[in-house]
Amino acid sequence: MKSLVLEEKLKLSLRDFPIEEALGPRDVRIGIHTVGICGSDVHYYTHGGIGQFIVREPMILGHEASGTVTEVGAQVTNLKVGDRVCMEPGIPDPNSRASRLGMYNIDPAVRFWATPPVHGCLRPSVVHPADFTFKLPDNVSFAEAAMVEPLAVGVHAATKARVKPGDVALVQGAGPIGLVTALSALAAGCARVFLTDVDDTKLEIGASLSKAITTINVGKGDATAEILRQTEGWGVECVFECSGHPRAAGQVFDALCPGGVVVFVGIPVEPFHYDLGKAMVREARVEQIFRYAHVFPRCVGLIASGAIDVKPLITRKFAFEDSVHAFEVAATAPKGQVKMQIELP
Amino acid sequence: MKSLVLEEKLKLSLRDFPIEEALGPRDVRIGIHTVGICGSDVHYYTHGGIGQFIVREPMILGHEASGTVTEVGAQVTNLKVGDRVCMEPGIPDPNSRASRLGMYNIDPAVRFWATPPVHGCLRPSVVHPADFTFKLPDNVSFAEAAMVEPLAVGVHAATKARVKPGDVALVQGAGPIGLVTALSALAAGCARVFLTDVDDTKLEIGASLSKAITTINVGKGDATAEILRQTEGWGVECVFECSGHPRAAGQVFDALCPGGVVVFVGIPVEPFHYDLGKAMVREARVEQIFRYAHVFPRCVGLIASGAIDVKPLITRKFAFEDSVHAFEVAATAPKGQVKMQIELP
Amino acid sequence: MKSLVLEEKLKLSLRDFPIEEALGPRDVRIGIHTVGICGSDVHYYTHGGIGQFIVREPMILGHEASGTVTEVGAQVTNLKVGDRVCMEPGIPDPNSRASRLGMYNIDPAVRFWATPPVHGCLRPSVVHPADFTFKLPDNVSFAEAAMVEPLAVGVHAATKARVKPGDVALVQGAGPIGLVTALSALAAGCARVFLTDVDDTKLEIGASLSKAITTINVGKGDATAEILRQTEGWGVECVFECSGHPRAAGQVFDALCPGGVVVFVGIPVEPFHYDLGKAMVREARVEQIFRYAHVFPRCVGLIASGAIDVKPLITRKFAFEDSVHAFEVAATAPKGQVKMQIELP
Amino acid sequence: MKSLVLEEKLKLSLRDFPIEEALGPRDVRIGIHTVGICGSDVHYYTHGGIGQFIVREPMILGHEASGTVTEVGAQVTNLKVGDRVCMEPGIPDPNSRASRLGMYNIDPAVRFWATPPVHGCLRPSVVHPADFTFKLPDNVSFAEAAMVEPLAVGVHAATKARVKPGDVALVQGAGPIGLVTALSALAAGCARVFLTDVDDTKLEIGASLSKAITTINVGKGDATAEILRQTEGWGVECVFECSGHPRAAGQVFDALCPGGVVVFVGIPVEPFHYDLGKAMVREARVEQIFRYAHVFPRCVGLIASGAIDVKPLITRKFAFEDSVHAFEVAATAPKGQVKMQIELP
Repeated sequence: MKSLVLEEKLKLSLRDFPIEEALGPRDVRIGIHTVGICGSDVHYYTHGGIGQFIVREPMILGHEASGTVTEVGAQVTNLKVGDRVCMEPGIPDPNSRASRLGMYNIDPAVRFWATPPVHGCLRPSVVHPADFTFKLPDNVSFAEAAMVEPLAVGVHAATKARVKPGDVALVQGAGPIGLVTALSALAAGCARVFLTDVDDTKLEIGASLSKAITTINVGKGDATAEILRQTEGWGVECVFECSGHPRAAGQVFDALCPGGVVVFVGIPVEPFHYDLGKAMVREARVEQIFRYAHVFPRCVGLIASGAIDVKPLITRKFAFEDSVHAFEVAATAPKGQVKMQIELP
Repeated sequence: MKSLVLEEKLKLSLRDFPIEEALGPRDVRIGIHTVGICGSDVHYYTHGGIGQFIVREPMILGHEASGTVTEVGAQVTNLKVGDRVCMEPGIPDPNSRASRLGMYNIDPAVRFWATPPVHGCLRPSVVHPADFTFKLPDNVSFAEAAMVEPLAVGVHAATKARVKPGDVALVQGAGPIGLVTALSALAAGCARVFLTDVDDTKLEIGASLSKAITTINVGKGDATAEILRQTEGWGVECVFECSGHPRAAGQVFDALCPGGVVVFVGIPVEPFHYDLGKAMVREARVEQIFRYAHVFPRCVGLIASGAIDVKPLITRKFAFEDSVHAFEVAATAPKGQVKMQIELP
Repeated sequence: MKSLVLEEKLKLSLRDFPIEEALGPRDVRIGIHTVGICGSDVHYYTHGGIGQFIVREPMILGHEASGTVTEVGAQVTNLKVGDRVCMEPGIPDPNSRASRLGMYNIDPAVRFWATPPVHGCLRPSVVHPADFTFKLPDNVSFAEAAMVEPLAVGVHAATKARVKPGDVALVQGAGPIGLVTALSALAAGCARVFLTDVDDTKLEIGASLSKAITTINVGKGDATAEILRQTEGWGVECVFECSGHPRAAGQVFDALCPGGVVVFVGIPVEPFHYDLGKAMVREARVEQIFRYAHVFPRCVGLIASGAIDVKPLITRKFAFEDSVHAFEVAATAPKGQVKMQIELP
Repeated sequence: MKSLVLEEKLKLSLRDFPIEEALGPRDVRIGIHTVGICGSDVHYYTHGGIGQFIVREPMILGHEASGTVTEVGAQVTNLKVGDRVCMEPGIPDPNSRASRLGMYNIDPAVRFWATPPVHGCLRPSVVHPADFTFKLPDNVSFAEAAMVEPLAVGVHAATKARVKPGDVALVQGAGPIGLVTALSALAAGCARVFLTDVDDTKLEIGASLSKAITTINVGKGDATAEILRQTEGWGVECVFECSGHPRAAGQVFDALCPGGVVVFVGIPVEPFHYDLGKAMVREARVEQIFRYAHVFPRCVGLIASGAIDVKPLITRKFAFEDSVHAFEVAATAPKGQVKMQIELP
């Protein structure tokens, strides 16, 4: 069973890597079809770890996946062999206090694919709980289904924002997460999204996704002034900080309207200035998200109905046998690429 | 100044009807361009009143309007002569307790166009508070702008429902309000809307609006069973009751999922069975709306960005000189008509 | 192991009734100390069933209980032998869709004590999941702890109402549930509670609980008029319908302020008039509750801190050997009794 | 008409200071009875300004006031001569966009007593809008009524937190605002409040207010460790940061439970570290408040019903003729004083 193994920092192998996985009564076994490459996968590859999570032993990468059910546990009723599915990569303890309150994503016991010491899904098959495996309608492709995981971040952010129909939003950062957040904000009811970045190539992709997206290059102009000008001085109801840049994070309140909401999606590696005075005079609400909860089937539904089109974000595909090369390419942060995916045989 | 005057029940005249309206410092004067015909206008015409509101003196009809600013009060800063606008027809006391709490629509002192004894807007010009007059972007036509008033009901309903991205909704009733509510529910984040009625013509129009709308003729099939079948037994997160039929109103909980919300939009004239037992086992939340508040500029934004397309709902136009005929036609509830509009010279 | 067994309608025995209960790894075994008599227990005794739940085989009664841990399962970490505890009587499937969303109380698979075919707790010991067993602080007595179950209904209702500090509430019905709801509404932030009933004895008990409770006998006066008079015509922010009477249920909107909330706690056996017109002009929010979720430890905390004093509601105690007699007394609905409890040896 | 005038920084006079105030139709004239001394008054005295608000001309101080109505405008219906009242010191433009949305406190046009260039209320009489003047029940004294203004900050904070019955809170800072916030949190439903400060005298006052308040001196011990120990490792549902210290502000997430809320009430003058990582793994909600809105009558109700007792916070009274001395005393931040008040003749 060939898998894509991160042996150590900067060393990837496509090699046999046997994992014995017993099929529990509530589990399914899934043959993997498509896996997207996430920035975190690349970061493990280039840095050997993320924060406190250090790759100390060989680990299989990948957590954005779709596939086909090949075996079902005895108590599984919602899935059958042959179902096309996508999978939520984090598995909580259903009996933890946070899980019982409905916030399973912030249960500290969550086991998440490709987060040491848990293996990822860049391998021919996985065993997964049926409760975190979601059937695809016929009109959702494997490629789109492998986009559900990153999309879930945007949809969760928009859900936390409690977008009201007709809100105007600012999304800071036009990387993959910024783009899915912009699409999610629109699907959640925003009439309009301002999208900012310093990279014109990224902004062009963003602008191409919807005529309701207005891009501003913050390296060239004053986004706050422009937004206030276009909103009659009121500002935006929602700000989604997806850039992870300390300077952007320090400006989240500048274009925010009275009573508006800020959602922190990206994580600046360095400290940033939280401008409490500006937050107070607006009585801003600030939400922070951690991955997502309860949104996978919602994302599938939004893709299936056409409310969100993720296809323009899938910019390149690799065969599984070229997956080491795929990561080498990804590590160069190539211009014009949003999401690269790997297809298994 | 020719106006469309309801002299008494079943008697309309297009005749001179002078109204002296002083322009206050915060008012604007508007030349009317387009006025939609609402079911309530028709009901005043055919019945001479609605509930406690009786037409005792000649009254000008019409409350769904767009036009052009022709004069501005001394303190008006947000509008200028020549601006294309639409107008919110209900004017509250800004100092009432409800208004101060942000709920101006349920201020009992609201004065609403074409609700006795307040005249409507089927006349060449009106004076209106600038705070309730909203500028149109260039890409929103007068016809679309005259749709903002009915659309506002749907958007307000969807706002009250607090739709979350990916929700599935049931809209009961495919009349004009049901249709704008279905569009609003989708714009507010629903992945899918089931739309029910007993009239196939109406359902066909509904189905044509979006592939995310699934229609069910409740005169021919069991909507609850069908919805449960298509939602894996879970049901829908939101039910919008727009039919005004006691039988439909009595079934609002049948297809509702645990923790779901019902919004009553239509008003059954007869009592209906509120099935508290079914509401309880779901811990249903039930919201009721009264017109709308704070949503006119949001509707303009949603139309401008393409999030909601109201054009397919505008099915017939009349010249102002034919407006008596227009009401005679409207009173027959003609098949296939959703919204008929009158254009002023 | 002597237990209080409902053999059939109107036939109770205190007799040996062996139940084999294996202690799972996440369970505890509890020696029962005090059990309150609930109206539903009495109804099973007098009618042999409640709605769809029919007593077809002998069933042990009782679901309001406190006791002492006597044995703990291998994986239990939050409790130890000797801990004084109270127990939540409904056990859901933690993996159901409703449970995962945090709404375990509306999971249809919930198994609830003394609801056929599930036995209750009027017996020397029970095995119970540790997750639904809550440790008592030293200053909370077993008698108070056995009040947590009915109190939980009131606290859940007040939570659903989303009471804001300084709200004024109306509680309809001064039976045990009305009284705990009034106390819960005050603890949740209400500045004042109007309490209505037709029974002066019940109202006197209510009035004695807090000077913030104002009682009105609706058999003798017009509660709506009185409330509007005392609230400057505004009305109350929250109405809790706990009477279960169709007439009271039909009046829930009469004294409700614009934007107010109604919570249905009691269940009228007969249909009632849902006055949609009154609900609409207020844009009322209507919530329904089904038992409670997540509030047991909160109730323990509120009792421990003195925020809620349930002791005045405990009006009579019986020894376990007199428990058949206790139910005979309870079946007469004796005047002046709120909660009768049974103490086990 | 003698008034307490801040002539310039550190120079106060009690002298004639005529202000011509016309009584508008919706205004009342009020003879002032009691005025509390706020930290902001003292700060204007000692520093000559607060942030952007500089005292450039002589200004009357004081904004926490109660008194008696002496004259009513022609359209005033809710008040009459002789009514005992308290007054909300900030007057917004009722037609501003924020006001119409119900958020009048964050209307930039608000005119607030004793905030340059607006005079305060340490003078024999003021003219004030009736809508912002609140009648007192007989059992609320003038001294208590003059506490409504600072209490309103705490009640607004607790309202924003959306406290649920049984929540546990941490209030950082045991100054006057910390104390009213602790009382408000309890009144809003908290079962328990941890109160922290570095000053034992302040903490002793806090501990004396309620047995539900547990104090921790953060200069002597680790509050986070202690709170986690006392909450079984879960933490608190609500953190109210009232200390205004950068170090405390930087620790708001440490003891916060998953899904908890932080409300920033105090304003650190220096930047502080916003620990986004800790906020994210908890999916914390962060609210900021700016004064208060809609809570004055609620505070009056909570004091009247006994839900909140502010009397222990009133620690010293001065006659109006000694008011310069009162400010000199206040400027020394005397140990053991919470609220000092000035009584007018």
